[in-house]
Amino acid sequence: MSLIVQKYGGTSVGTVERIEAVAKKVAASYQEGNQLVVAVSAMSGETNRLIGLANEISSDANLREMDVLVSTGEQVTIALLCMALQKLGIDALSYTGSQVRILTDNAHGKARIREIDNHRLQGALKAGKVVVVAGFQGVDEEGNITTLGRGGSDTTAVALAAALKADECQIYTDVDGVYTTDPRLVSDARRLDKITFEEMLEMASQGSKILQIRSVEFAGKYSVPLRVLSSFEEGPGTLISLEEDDQMEKPLVSGIAFNRDEAKLTIRGIPDQPGVAYKVLGAISEANIEIDVIVQNVAKDNSASITFTVNKTDLSQAEELLGEIAKDLGALEVDSDKRIAKVSIVGVGMRSHAGVAAKMFEALSDEGINIQLITTSEIKITVVIEERYLELAVRALHSVFELSASDSEST
Amino acid sequence: MSLIVQKYGGTSVGTVERIEAVAKKVAASYQEGNQLVVAVSAMSGETNRLIGLANEISSDANLREMDVLVSTGEQVTIALLCMALQKLGIDALSYTGSQVRILTDNAHGKARIREIDNHRLQGALKAGKVVVVAGFQGVDEEGNITTLGRGGSDTTAVALAAALKADECQIYTDVDGVYTTDPRLVSDARRLDKITFEEMLEMASQGSKILQIRSVEFAGKYSVPLRVLSSFEEGPGTLISLEEDDQMEKPLVSGIAFNRDEAKLTIRGIPDQPGVAYKVLGAISEANIEIDVIVQNVAKDNSASITFTVNKTDLSQAEELLGEIAKDLGALEVDSDKRIAKVSIVGVGMRSHAGVAAKMFEALSDEGINIQLITTSEIKITVVIEERYLELAVRALHSVFELSASDSEST
Repeated sequence: MSLIVQKYGGTSVGTVERIEAVAKKVAASYQEGNQLVVAVSAMSGETNRLIGLANEISSDANLREMDVLVSTGEQVTIALLCMALQKLGIDALSYTGSQVRILTDNAHGKARIREIDNHRLQGALKAGKVVVVAGFQGVDEEGNITTLGRGGSDTTAVALAAALKADECQIYTDVDGVYTTDPRLVSDARRLDKITFEEMLEMASQGSKILQIRSVEFAGKYSVPLRVLSSFEEGPGTLISLEEDDQMEKPLVSGIAFNRDEAKLTIRGIPDQPGVAYKVLGAISEANIEIDVIVQNVAKDNSASITFTVNKTDLSQAEELLGEIAKDLGALEVDSDKRIAKVSIVGVGMRSHAGVAAKMFEALSDEGINIQLITTSEIKITVVIEERYLELAVRALHSVFELSASDSEST
Repeated sequence: MSLIVQKYGGTSVGTVERIEAVAKKVAASYQEGNQLVVAVSAMSGETNRLIGLANEISSDANLREMDVLVSTGEQVTIALLCMALQKLGIDALSYTGSQVRILTDNAHGKARIREIDNHRLQGALKAGKVVVVAGFQGVDEEGNITTLGRGGSDTTAVALAAALKADECQIYTDVDGVYTTDPRLVSDARRLDKITFEEMLEMASQGSKILQIRSVEFAGKYSVPLRVLSSFEEGPGTLISLEEDDQMEKPLVSGIAFNRDEAKLTIRGIPDQPGVAYKVLGAISEANIEIDVIVQNVAKDNSASITFTVNKTDLSQAEELLGEIAKDLGALEVDSDKRIAKVSIVGVGMRSHAGVAAKMFEALSDEGINIQLITTSEIKITVVIEERYLELAVRALHSVFELSASDSEST
């Protein structure tokens, strides 16, 4: 008998029919003899409907009241899912975040979980019940309702799994697992059976939107095996765990992530002195603009240049700020480029293999693709290229690192 | 400085615009220097929408989960009303039933309030805040969400007023007060400035649907002055209190209530023996059919007959049961009549005045209306007549007891 935490997102519970389909999946796992805790999101569209009501009153509504409002979305789902389970003859019991007591800090709208009281849940599980918990929400020490921010239901599921020492945390979503790259771009992309937390984090931070980064970090920290699988199709999904793949020959690269949401900014001819990078990037960060890739170079004349990327939606604000900074520092020039894309290869195999970067650069060179920026981490190499070459680059890398389904069969 | 509890029903908070209008009313009272606790219902239509979702799954959903589901309705309203108040610069704070701690029994869907913890509310009021509480809901000793049943928001408001020893409990609704009778029937019906709890109870139980009977009983028990007034118009409304009208000459009759939702059943030729009434009516009650007027007569031959009224929707079931009972008792016959109406005159003045009944019967006789049944209480006389004479009867009684607006001015 295993203790399993399942999580179903908004699309999976988007209609009453889908909630009944979820109930069948839960019932099947229960009837296999598992103990089950199910975390659910609001029905898709519901959270936006509620935010819409608030926006009719104020675009800047009080965050405490916003949490009181939007937390009703998941509360509706837990009740309906329990009813659907009871219809199937399964004894089910719902809990809101505050009924479980998912204790969080008081940062309304983006609260962090501090502690989960597993007392009531354990009792219900022991009594043979399926427990259904509202995702995305908690309660602070004063009893105020809090929410974890968008996508927080994944985090709820992982936190519940950690608190209950569950055997597995299964995240049901609209894809059937983690792929070597986006199948819409590369038709023979392959579903991975296994991936490590680190790889998943790198994939997620590079634009693979299957799981919230926070929930993967959380799962890694508490060693909760995570499985991504489809609400709509049968299949084993992808297991995300601590263990590296135990194949004799580890693949060099597990997957290819990409992102075309960023723009590049460069400031040239700034003094090559301590504190300059801080002056440039600190001002951008203070404006709450997230900076991704950062590269600094020093030219022959000992003047430096810094290039970094930000989300395209933040570009005009970042340009303005950078213009002011350039004046202060007596910089030579500032320029920006929207037509860029970021491509990363990710794999724990890189740790023990030299030459991966060279192989990547060679493949891009063979296709005549110029590399604008390079950054590397222990298990990831990222390049920024011209946006129009993105598909070409991803397909070339997918092929050269033998990631396609047919490659896998031949090994 | 007075402490006032206000209650706004579903129609009053039916849209965001109306919620903003409610916020203005609350703000006006707050700015007059009052301390305010506001109980609200779900936006009109919302509770039915939620019940509709549950019915898609099961017509017989688990009551605990039903309460989890429908209690979200009021939770949405409290958040939106607080946002609207904050927009007007009023410091407002929302509480769900379980956050206040409105402790109830565990009869889901029709829970009764046991105790209200006024600790948190008092603290918020002392800090100068307007407190907004979700009506209709509470929490049982185990932390399960409960609801008080439809219309329970009135009860919440009265219970809050009792717990906080409020100076007045103001029920905002879509009518501007309690009338001598239904103005749709009698065009010169008059709004009453004052009415006693007892009179209001008799009016309510006889079909005047402005207030839930339970909330009036509750208010009477705890001596909470209740005021019924309009969400949409200005005006003093009607004050319901312990004190009888202090005019020198009390009116004999305060109002006329009526009801056309009932049907009449008669069983004739039953033995005039102890226990027979119980045999007849006990079986009906056990089937959860509510019995209203009951009249028993004994005929010359010492056989008895019993006549009683039930809601029209229960008629066919009651007829069937009565048929079986008739067989058991060897009764002569059973018959029923749907085309009846009930008319009551209500007034504390009756206590000290003889001749009120005679005056009533005379007025009906003058109009050629036959009286089928009569029952009386200390402050009420009820007759059952043919349904087609209902309007005529109400107008005649309204006139003979001088209840119209012009009568009032002339005295």
